[in-house]
Order: sequence, then C-alpha cells, then structure tokens
Amino acid sequence: MVTWNNLDTLASYKELQEAGKVQLAEAMSGENGAERVKKYSVPMAEGLVYNYGAKQVDDNILDILAKLAEEAQLTEKYEALYNGEMINTGEKRLVLHQLTRGQLGEAVVADGVDKRAFYVEQQTKIAEFANKVHAGEITNAAGEKFTTVVQIGIGGSDLGPRAIYIALENWAKANNTLKMKAEFISNVDPDDASGVLSKVDVAHSIFVLVSKSGTTLETLTNESFVKDALKKAGLDPSKHMIAVTSETSPLAQSDDYLAAFFMDDYIGGRYSSTSAVGGAVLSLAFGPEVFAQFLAGAAEEDKLATEKDLLKNPAMLDAVIGVYERNVLGYLDTAVLPYSQALSRFPAHLQQLDMESNGKSVNRFGEPVNYQTGPVIFGEPGTNGQHSFYQLLHQGTDIVPLQFVGFKNNQMDQDVVIQGSTSQQKLCANVAAQIVAFACGKDDENRNKKFEGGRPSSIIIGEKLTPGALGALLSHFENKVMFQGFVWNLNSFDQEGVQLGKVLAKRVLAHETDGALKVYSDLLNI
Amino acid sequence: MVTWNNLDTLASYKELQEAGKVQLAEAMSGENGAERVKKYSVPMAEGLVYNYGAKQVDDNILDILAKLAEEAQLTEKYEALYNGEMINTGEKRLVLHQLTRGQLGEAVVADGVDKRAFYVEQQTKIAEFANKVHAGEITNAAGEKFTTVVQIGIGGSDLGPRAIYIALENWAKANNTLKMKAEFISNVDPDDASGVLSKVDVAHSIFVLVSKSGTTLETLTNESFVKDALKKAGLDPSKHMIAVTSETSPLAQSDDYLAAFFMDDYIGGRYSSTSAVGGAVLSLAFGPEVFAQFLAGAAEEDKLATEKDLLKNPAMLDAVIGVYERNVLGYLDTAVLPYSQALSRFPAHLQQLDMESNGKSVNRFGEPVNYQTGPVIFGEPGTNGQHSFYQLLHQGTDIVPLQFVGFKNNQMDQDVVIQGSTSQQKLCANVAAQIVAFACGKDDENRNKKFEGGRPSSIIIGEKLTPGALGALLSHFENKVMFQGFVWNLNSFDQEGVQLGKVLAKRVLAHETDGALKVYSDLLNI
Repeated sequence: MVTWNNLDTLASYKELQEAGKVQLAEAMSGENGAERVKKYSVPMAEGLVYNYGAKQVDDNILDILAKLAEEAQLTEKYEALYNGEMINTGEKRLVLHQLTRGQLGEAVVADGVDKRAFYVEQQTKIAEFANKVHAGEITNAAGEKFTTVVQIGIGGSDLGPRAIYIALENWAKANNTLKMKAEFISNVDPDDASGVLSKVDVAHSIFVLVSKSGTTLETLTNESFVKDALKKAGLDPSKHMIAVTSETSPLAQSDDYLAAFFMDDYIGGRYSSTSAVGGAVLSLAFGPEVFAQFLAGAAEEDKLATEKDLLKNPAMLDAVIGVYERNVLGYLDTAVLPYSQALSRFPAHLQQLDMESNGKSVNRFGEPVNYQTGPVIFGEPGTNGQHSFYQLLHQGTDIVPLQFVGFKNNQMDQDVVIQGSTSQQKLCANVAAQIVAFACGKDDENRNKKFEGGRPSSIIIGEKLTPGALGALLSHFENKVMFQGFVWNLNSFDQEGVQLGKVLAKRVLAHETDGALKVYSDLLNI
Repeated sequence: MVTWNNLDTLASYKELQEAGKVQLAEAMSGENGAERVKKYSVPMAEGLVYNYGAKQVDDNILDILAKLAEEAQLTEKYEALYNGEMINTGEKRLVLHQLTRGQLGEAVVADGVDKRAFYVEQQTKIAEFANKVHAGEITNAAGEKFTTVVQIGIGGSDLGPRAIYIALENWAKANNTLKMKAEFISNVDPDDASGVLSKVDVAHSIFVLVSKSGTTLETLTNESFVKDALKKAGLDPSKHMIAVTSETSPLAQSDDYLAAFFMDDYIGGRYSSTSAVGGAVLSLAFGPEVFAQFLAGAAEEDKLATEKDLLKNPAMLDAVIGVYERNVLGYLDTAVLPYSQALSRFPAHLQQLDMESNGKSVNRFGEPVNYQTGPVIFGEPGTNGQHSFYQLLHQGTDIVPLQFVGFKNNQMDQDVVIQGSTSQQKLCANVAAQIVAFACGKDDENRNKKFEGGRPSSIIIGEKLTPGALGALLSHFENKVMFQGFVWNLNSFDQEGVQLGKVLAKRVLAHETDGALKVYSDLLNI
C-alpha cells in the first residue's frame, strides 16, 4: 500500500537540504575527477549508459537520495501504476503506456478486456495493414503503391512520432528499411497543411488521422483541409485515410477511413508514442519490425526502472538528482543537448513530456505545494547549440542543469577525415570537452574569459542511435518524469492547464467576448 | 558622450524596485482591461504593432522605465553604435549590422572604406550573381540550371538564414518567387551532411560555404564532406560552390569557388542575417528583390529604434519591460510563441541572438555584475505549443514572460471553414484567448482547475508575414537585445563563453587529455 505525501513532509528531504554541497569544479579535477566519472555510471538498456559523474552529488548525497526514493516509495508507486491502480486521480484513469511495450506485473483488466492483449492486438493489426501497403496489396484507386504517409495530429499525436521519425529516417535509409517517407501536419495555421500538401504527391499518400477523442479541433480542421485537397485532385478521401482513435470515438466505425486502429483513455497523449499513435505512422514508414525493435528497447528500459537499488535504476537516479538540483540547489530549467542531428526534435518532445506532466502547482489532492515543481525544458542538438546559446550556459548568471546524449557511431556510416579526425570523432570530442568545461571551468585574469565552472551535467552514451536505443531513451525520460511527479506528489497524467485557453478561444469564435478579449479579437480581425 | 554604468547604480532602478506592482489579473479585467489593451500599443514598421496591454506595467511603471531608458542613455548608445564607435570593446570592433540595411547616422569609414558602400556593393554583386543563376547564365558544367541552394554554416551562419528561409518558403511559393529550394548543413555530426546529400540532386545544387574567418572547423569539415560527394558524382566542386567570408580569409581569393562575397568583423555571426551571410542563400532562393524587401523592413524598424520617446520606440519598450520582469519582478526565461507555422524556427534564432548576446556575468569592463542578465529563451509555434508545454506556463510554479506573434492573414491564401470559422480565425482566436487566459486566469473550487493568472505577455500583430514584416520583426529583436545589453552594461557583441569548449575539444582530438576528460574520451571511443 503506497501513501502520497508532499516532498517537504519527508525526513530525507530535510536531510538533503542540510547535507554539505559538492564543489563540482574541485570534485571533477585531477584523478579524483577521473575516478568519479568511472564510478558514477549505470548501465541502461540496449547498451546505453547513464553517466552522472558531472552531477553535483557525492556518496553522501546519493545515500540521502536513496532514502528519499525509498521514503517516497518510488518503485512501489511505479508498481502500483503498472499493475493498474488508478494513478491519474484527476481524470480517474489508469496509466498504462508501459503495457504497450511489455507486461511488467499483473494482468490489467479494464473495460472488460486484458489491456496488454488489446494493445498487442492493435499492433498486430497495424503490422498487417502496413505489410499489405508495402507489398502493394493495399493501393490507391489506380492500383499504385503508396509512397508517403502523412500524420495529422497535434501535441502528443505529433511531437513524439515526429521526433522518432526524424531520429530514424537516416538510420532506415542506411539500412534499406525506409518504406515510405513521412510528413506531419499539426498546426491549425492553414499554412501548415498547405505547405505540406504543396510538397507531397497526394495521389500516392496515406493520411493518418490521430485523435483519441475524435474531437480535437485542430486535427479535424486539418482533416477537412486534406479531404478538400484530395477531392480537388479527383481522389476519394476514404481510400487515402486511416484513423487512430479510441474505440468509442466518432471516427472509430466510420466509412471515411480505410482502417481504424485503437488506443484508449489509459494512454496519455504525451505518453502515446509506443501506442497506435506512433505505431501506425512508424510501421508504415519503417516497417513493423523496426517499430517492434523500438518497443523492445522501451520495454527493456521499463524493466530497469523497477529496480529498487537507486544506483542500478537510471531513470529513478536521474529523477531524484533533478529534484535535488531544482529544490535544494535552486537551479533553473533543464537543457537537453543530444550530440546527434537525428535527435533534432527529441528535445521538443521531451519539452511536452516533462512540462505538461509536472508543470503544476497543486498536488494530487488539489492542494497547493510549497516547492518548485517541473522545470522548463529546452534544447537543440550539439554541436549546433555550442555556436548558439551555450554562451549563457557557460557564463550566464543562472545555472542550468544539462542533459547530454552522445553515440560512438553515426547512423549512415559515411564520414570524412579532416585535420586528422573524422566528423564523428569531432562530434564526440566536443561533447566530452563541454562536460568538463561546464564542470571545471577555467580561471583567467581577464574576467570576461573566466569560466566559473560548477555547472552540472549528465550524459547518456550509446553505441549507435538504433530503434532499440531510441526506445530505451524514450522510456528513460518517461520514467524519469513519472518518478519526479511521484516525488513532487503531483498527478503527472492530467493537463487541466490547457482547458481555459480552449474555452476562451471558443468564445472568441462565437463572438461572445467583452473587455480585453474583445479588443484582442478586434486587433486580430476575428 | 555616453557613460557606461551598471544597472544597480541607477537612481531609476531603485525607484523601479520601490514602485507599486501592478495586479495584472485585476488590471486586465472588465472595461479597464479593454482600455489598457487599446492604449498600450505602439506601431512598428511594415504595419506591425507591438501591444503590451498584458504586461505587468501601468503609467507609473512606464514613467520610471522612461527615466531608466534616459538615465541609461539607451538611444545615445544606439547612436554611438551606428555612428561607428567601438561598442564591442572586448574584441575591439565596431558593430555595424544596421549598416547592411540602411544608414541611420554619419558615414562610417573603417579599413579605409565607407562601410555602408561596402555592404551595398556586396549585395549588388550577390544580386547580379543570383540573377545570372536564375536566368541560366551561370549553370553547372552540363549547362543545366541550378535548382537547389545548400548553405553550409553553423550558429549565426545557419540559424538566422534557415529561420528566414523557412519563414518565407510558403510565401514565395504563393507569390511565384521561389527560385530555388534551400537546404542547410550545419552540424559536425556526419549524419547531417549525409542526410541532406541523400535528398538533394547534387548535380543541380549550388553550395554556399559560410565562415567569416574561413577557419570554422564544423563548416570546413562539412565542406570537405560535400566536395567528396561532388567528386564521387563526377562533378567539379569548384563549379558548385560559392563562399561568404571576410576579405582577409583563406577562402576569399580561392579558385575553389565560383564566386566569393564578403562580410567583415563588424558583423557578429548572430547579427549577420542581413549581411552576405543571409544575402547569398536568400537571394538565390527567393530572388534579390525579395531580399531587398526584407532589408527595407529591417531598416524601417531600425529607424524606429532611434526614437527617444520610450512609448514610441517598440524595441526599447520591449527591452526595458523585459529588464523590469527579470530584475525587479524576478521572472524566469522568456517564451517566444509565434502563431505562425512559418516562424517555426524563429525562436531558435532568437535563442541564439539573445542568449549568446546577453548570457554574461561580467560588465563591459570585465567586472562581475550583481544582478541577473539575459534570460533563457525558448519557444515553439502556437497552436502546437498549447498542446505541449503551455500546461507549465499556465499552472507551473514559475512565471515565464511570453512573447506572442500573430498575423491576421496566412501566407498561402488557402483555407477551409469548419464549425463556422476558417483555420486562420481559429489560429487568431487561440492567441487572443491565450493572452487573456494567462493574464486573468480563472477561479475554480477545484484547485486543479484553477488558473492564478497574472502571467504577463506582449504580442506583435501584423497583416501578413511578408519579407518586409519579417525584416521588421528581426530588427525589433536585434534592437531589443542591444538595448537590454546597454541596460545591463554588458558587451552584447562578443562570446568568450564559447572558447573553452573549443580548446578542450582540440585537446581531446590530439589525445592530450588526463583526468575526467580522458575518461569521457574513452567512454566515447575517441
């Protein structure tokens, strides 16, 4: 039986506040620094490693963090979640995204069905559909093969699947498994749909309409936009569209779609990449086998998150170190810095995952909390970021914790030697250099050239960004966010903060406004 | 004669700290709110308007901010800058990016030439070159027209030109002035170049190599990568490449390039979009006339920034309100939220512009300052962001000031009516709704559904995102950042914080490491 308590009621939190702080620049210097980096490392799934040598912790802080994890019952709460307790208390829903990739605990029966079996059934149906499309058994009306898949969705139905597609597109090219090119339409700005439609061959495109409720206004609007375009091209929209939705949605049984695949209310949008929401577009783009490898990587990492020993549980470790940085050290934000161009949109996905889950001021009982919760998340790939915002990270007045990601090998196996090193070596040399530069700094008589150091980071290192490694990476961050929500005693699975804007926007469109809202509406010519 | 003083030595800053705070939720309610929004508005260039009705200011705060602007001599410092004083004291350089688009003051002579004439000469040479390419007078060796332009650059040579290209690509399609498609290679990750090369037709591509010094390692590496690919395709690289560099760089007089166009040390990378750095790729992509319209918009907005009356100077107003939020109200970060898919990468450019300029802890004399300087900048387009990180902005434990941008019309003139409104109306209704939701909030018995409000924002509203409007937008933010640097007494034009990482990366590549750096190098297989 778990109990839900605020962070500031925990004895270990008080201990953490009173514990001596690590002087990171000093700790990371010389041979001691080398020992730290070797020691503060934990294996992840798919050959990844989470290294926290450059975090502002030592054995004493880690001991207290282990007590915190235990006192906050983090693994017990995770167990309750995957065994089907109603963790999303606000919306009174189970939280079952881990079940889309594996079964960690007991069978979870809801709505009269075994949910693991239900998710697997959807994956199987998607795989069969995708295989038929690739084999030319499902074609356009002229009997020609589909070459492009276009996802229509927003938020969790867009950011995750898009980031994953971009992450694996070049890998798939190099491995001859890019079956169809994928594009994405998300924004209600009509230029988004127009722009995508101006560059795809609609006659050979399948559109995947993704909306759990079947009522997301942006998505339905873009669907109409696309249907218009198909009709104008003399095509039958129902032969070019599939739906991903819940079984109870108006889209589920419609003749408007070639096929419909299902998710349910137990999969939050931002956690839906491993459900049919990601499954349809990614199986069409890369083939079902690739999507299955991705799921296997996530499942393996999910398993690691059940580990009760903090030092063997990378997601839980990442989570509690993050809480220490935010609530005790008082650091702001978190920058996600993948040294991999393929991960260019991964930070945008993590931005939603983290900020929408834990950007809250009340606990799971609706009571205000007296401590900071989820940080702002932002990031761009290195080395690009080095030539952009790293200036502030190195010498600005705030300390921003950093999450690096790096791989020993590139995806496309093409490289060039310049000045005695490959591009891949230069890339890796840069991330190694940055970690040490941030942690250790450098003195200089000219204060403008001085680096204070003491800026903490961790790095996840992998062999290569494969589907499996990407699945593990995704799971790591999903579970990190979940654990942090547990520590802060939040409901990380609702998003009431998005409702007010929707209500007011409807009022504007109905011309039922007054005061400032009317003036803004006039200024914008609505 | 201007004098340079720290913010905390100014009498008006003390006054600002002691002044009564505005209760934004209350101020924005009812008819008072409507009056505020009507009143707190200032015209920008190209029909844009900067509206600060939802900022946490009133007439009293604005009076004190006007005193601050005067006491800090903001317009005098700007005047000194555009008249050619050495404002970048760290690197002992003039700061002349405004001269690439107009002449605000006296002729500036440096290196024995009139710099305005020099920049115009480069633009003219670029225009002639681009016109010849478009007319088929400059072709590939087979006499075929070039169809694609690929920019090779990083940081300021990438983010600004890329954001601008994306912002105008659909506009250009709709206006039949998309002459060539543009692509960008930036990251030293070899998958970046491989990925771009896998999708362009190299035989019909011109590559623009951009490096002021001619020594940027990432860019030279990617150049070699591209040259290899051209040779493998049986092509002569020198017939497919142009250079944008300084006259003194090794690239300037090389036979390796079809042509070379020049910038100089007085144009910082992040301020270089209006120089040859943006000029070459954008003139090739859209035609020189479009690039000229973009420059004209920037020039008109630059002129507005000379206005001494704070309430008529949108960039200065935006700057001092931002300082008030950061240093007096203690708010974190700034989110840039354009309700325009075309501006999808504009926040990434502003992130560099702002964070690299003002992310500093020492003043222009190298002395530590006792106040916060530049904030973290992040953002994504609306309405996408609403379905992602807005949860934290509405209900998180930190207040993040917001910068909205919206346009009354879309770029491609294609739209669809669903549920009684167009997509464009829905887009605009959403931004209006968000501003009011953030400012006013909403009470609710269920604390989880309660919105505190009091979250300040401003909005820039335009008719349509045209080249001129985009130029004005760019200039606005460049000048805002400049004015904030003046208030904080920083040198906003150097970036010493990027140096240490470069030095350490070289050491890694030379295998001259020890301690933690050696361990990280080993972990990454370098």
